Amino acid sequence: MKKIEHIGIAVKSLSESNSLFEKLLGVPAYKEEEVASEGVKTSFFMNGPNKIELLEATREDSPIAKFIEKRGEGIHHIAFDVEDILSEMERLKKEGFILLNEVPKRGADNKLVAFLHPKSTQGVLIELCQDAG
Amino acid sequence: MKKIEHIGIAVKSLSESNSLFEKLLGVPAYKEEEVASEGVKTSFFMNGPNKIELLEATREDSPIAKFIEKRGEGIHHIAFDVEDILSEMERLKKEGFILLNEVPKRGADNKLVAFLHPKSTQGVLIELCQDAG
Repeated sequence: MKKIEHIGIAVKSLSESNSLFEKLLGVPAYKEEEVASEGVKTSFFMNGPNKIELLEATREDSPIAKFIEKRGEGIHHIAFDVEDILSEMERLKKEGFILLNEVPKRGADNKLVAFLHPKSTQGVLIELCQDAG
Repeated sequence: MKKIEHIGIAVKSLSESNSLFEKLLGVPAYKEEEVASEGVKTSFFMNGPNKIELLEATREDSPIAKFIEKRGEGIHHIAFDVEDILSEMERLKKEGFILLNEVPKRGADNKLVAFLHPKSTQGVLIELCQDAG
């Protein structure tokens, strides 16, 4: 857990939110990317050593669509930067955390990612991410 | 907006959550602090250039008690580190953001803080914070 890699924020409209977060952070999004397997379009903003990721659902059964339906727009997850995702997953499993992925999967922004179940982390959806190199 | 200063997480029990986040982050909380004016007890964990703040309500009318009653435990706010909170508040007001505080107030961890209304930030509660020096 080297740092907060990014905060993921669920939004209804990426284009509307991009302009809002550009005003907030003082910089435009440096990339937009679709992750078809997750049913999301994302945009990323740099903020010093950290990033902000905005997520818009591209289909009704996307986890982001369900999140917004249930809770409205807002903070969706915290992603921590890890050096070695496999050993970190192993360590956290031994500590009693529940992993949502048995093996890392390909995420946005050239990362290998895995999620921890919010049941085991006081309601917080946590993503581990490692540079895919 | 220099970086993510911390992520605030609303929890029911600080002592229970402290041990969970110590396992997650691999370090113990470096401080605990009560902010009586906000009705919260907090603990802070370092994570590289960022921090995680856990917040437990100390009274029923605390914003944290209300948040947990409505949404359950989970991510409560994002705090951004700013160089000059007064000029940043002025800039954001001009950009159309709604401030919850007209003047900065004293927050935990030796900070001057001000909040933006989630109505104006896609449901995200955002805190500006500046070192009180």
